[in-house]
Amino acid sequence: MSVISKETQRLLATGSTLRDMFEEGKRLAKQYGRENIYDFSLGNPNTPVPEELNDAIRQVLDEYDSLTLHGYMSNPGFEDTRQAIADNLNERFGTNFAGKNICMTVGAANAIVIALKILLDPGDEVAVFAPFFLEYRNYISNFCGVTTVVPPNPPTFMPDMDALRNTITEKTKAIIINTPNNPTGVVYDEQTIRNIAAVLEECQEKYGHPIFLISDEPYRELIYDGLEYPFLTKYYANTMICYSFSKCLSIPGERIGYLLVPDEAAESQDILASTANAIRAVGCVNAPSLQQKAIMKVLNARSDTHIYDRNRQLLVSILHEAGFEVANPQGAFYVFVKTPVPDDKEFVSYAKDNYRIIISSGAAFDCPGYIRMAYCVEYAMIEKAKDSIIKLGKDYGLN
Amino acid sequence: MSVISKETQRLLATGSTLRDMFEEGKRLAKQYGRENIYDFSLGNPNTPVPEELNDAIRQVLDEYDSLTLHGYMSNPGFEDTRQAIADNLNERFGTNFAGKNICMTVGAANAIVIALKILLDPGDEVAVFAPFFLEYRNYISNFCGVTTVVPPNPPTFMPDMDALRNTITEKTKAIIINTPNNPTGVVYDEQTIRNIAAVLEECQEKYGHPIFLISDEPYRELIYDGLEYPFLTKYYANTMICYSFSKCLSIPGERIGYLLVPDEAAESQDILASTANAIRAVGCVNAPSLQQKAIMKVLNARSDTHIYDRNRQLLVSILHEAGFEVANPQGAFYVFVKTPVPDDKEFVSYAKDNYRIIISSGAAFDCPGYIRMAYCVEYAMIEKAKDSIIKLGKDYGLN
Repeated sequence: MSVISKETQRLLATGSTLRDMFEEGKRLAKQYGRENIYDFSLGNPNTPVPEELNDAIRQVLDEYDSLTLHGYMSNPGFEDTRQAIADNLNERFGTNFAGKNICMTVGAANAIVIALKILLDPGDEVAVFAPFFLEYRNYISNFCGVTTVVPPNPPTFMPDMDALRNTITEKTKAIIINTPNNPTGVVYDEQTIRNIAAVLEECQEKYGHPIFLISDEPYRELIYDGLEYPFLTKYYANTMICYSFSKCLSIPGERIGYLLVPDEAAESQDILASTANAIRAVGCVNAPSLQQKAIMKVLNARSDTHIYDRNRQLLVSILHEAGFEVANPQGAFYVFVKTPVPDDKEFVSYAKDNYRIIISSGAAFDCPGYIRMAYCVEYAMIEKAKDSIIKLGKDYGLN
Repeated sequence: MSVISKETQRLLATGSTLRDMFEEGKRLAKQYGRENIYDFSLGNPNTPVPEELNDAIRQVLDEYDSLTLHGYMSNPGFEDTRQAIADNLNERFGTNFAGKNICMTVGAANAIVIALKILLDPGDEVAVFAPFFLEYRNYISNFCGVTTVVPPNPPTFMPDMDALRNTITEKTKAIIINTPNNPTGVVYDEQTIRNIAAVLEECQEKYGHPIFLISDEPYRELIYDGLEYPFLTKYYANTMICYSFSKCLSIPGERIGYLLVPDEAAESQDILASTANAIRAVGCVNAPSLQQKAIMKVLNARSDTHIYDRNRQLLVSILHEAGFEVANPQGAFYVFVKTPVPDDKEFVSYAKDNYRIIISSGAAFDCPGYIRMAYCVEYAMIEKAKDSIIKLGKDYGLN
């Protein structure tokens, strides 16, 4: 019998398909030369970090006493940082948050884990929409919760309301949504948000208890075609916003984000008070202190999302020319492509072996029959990959 | 019925006694003036951060490309940081670690949580020695594990081997030890470590499976009286070291530490491979990237522990003069004091109400009948508190 827990054994056996492709990409780059492979596998921001951030770090090193800058604060974070974020959101979205509505976290993933820690008793269910970031399942199973899956809704990948209604049961404590979406790049429009809110209201009524909408929104600012982001707390009271500065500032390694709970949410004051207990209980204690102080100085800074938009337009046009069916990607830095054969893993291998194109299997997002391409890459690489992508489509009779 | 999970409700009801005392201290400081209260409640490092750390942060901002410095790396951390830590340990302790034995974590708490995530199936037991840092219980219950408690062993608070043997059952997957200890300040000597290892070997044999020794050692370098630290992996193969740079560099807000698993541990390679899955699953992804790069430049830097030692000597001499019974504190920055009445909470209130002395109840460490005083405070405050501490003892007939 192994000393390792059953769940960790399962994780070890399945690994992270995404991370494995990343390692495979590194291996192929060594074998063939970085310039001869087309790696679309990992969602790693590649637009420059705004110079303001490093300037802000240098400033806080000079401004603060070191024991304050690197020291403990209240578990939910420095009060001035939380207030600055609330003010910034209020200004941008017309909301009315105070610093106390926010708990600084070790990225959006930590925010989701804290939300689940607060909500879940063993056996409680959390619904997610396929395709989804598979770590959600692991976050939920930490606390002996159960993941239930709303089936995919191709070709638009906008959530289907009947499917949502059928997935929610009396045990459902929350659903997780992610818009702009990983892996599809789809952005939920305002009507979709209204529809989700209506189904949740209806199910709350039916089952007699609150159902939380946990919104994973690290890609909130990566949005194109002039779309506006419908800020979720305006549409549904029982919302928990999980945000990360990873994507808007290209700093995913720093692990800085927040959990936001509006006053109008059920038991909001107890939930907010519980963030302090929960962030300690999950072993984080608080978000990294220096980054909290630096971030508050650069809340309007952005890495250059036009770079992603330009990549998106080129890649989508190439995929269309090659004959592939693509979900309409209006956010994040992903496109989700229907594979011309049902077995997406076979397609992934074929693309890698014949064209050194590295992509992620849809099965890694609980959605076989599709693949994900991440376009946070060099524009020149996409240009250079064009012929190979066209040939790949040709091999499958798409052009 | 509340939307909040039963465990979070329990945490909300009990709160963190330690944090509550901290808030109470802040309230009293406002009421009476900071200079008129004697706050010994919180274990917050107060010796200056070594200037080398801020210099190292400035250096890495200049040296690295921002996307690398603030970006994703392999989940267990930058390879050069891990190798530098392994080399540093090998040099100091005569060990033989490689970078692959180390996973960088969001502090020691995160390292413990990752270790538990890897080991625990629901219902598995983890034994802890009272008095102990009560968050251990929360870390364990995250994964539906069960905490079993080895009763306190006053007046030395060195672990009692029969009590340990009686607490371990066939369901015990691990024990947690913490030396130098919070709250007692006691440092386990080499013979005690050998004894613990012998009991664990005996129990492994009896129950037919490995039992891990999870060592929580943020205070490893805060050790006085010329003591040497017995590095645990030399005494017991199935050891997991959970370290934090919080105390040795006075940077608890930054959340940077590591989990170390030696090659000789059971299934060590699978456990090490699982750290990548576990740090993602608990929502951290990786330790903060900039701090990883800065830390590796200052592995021999230390905040000035002589300041703590001087405080310790003064406080212990005052407590002795006042007639209190004190466990022999040779490490960390705590003394653990027997209360002259069985009800330690009553004593805590009496000291606060009559002398504005803020201390922590032993009940907050599962050890009623004692109180903890943290001496990471100003030396002058201890001097000024002397008369009040003597009078407090006098009130209870101790002098």
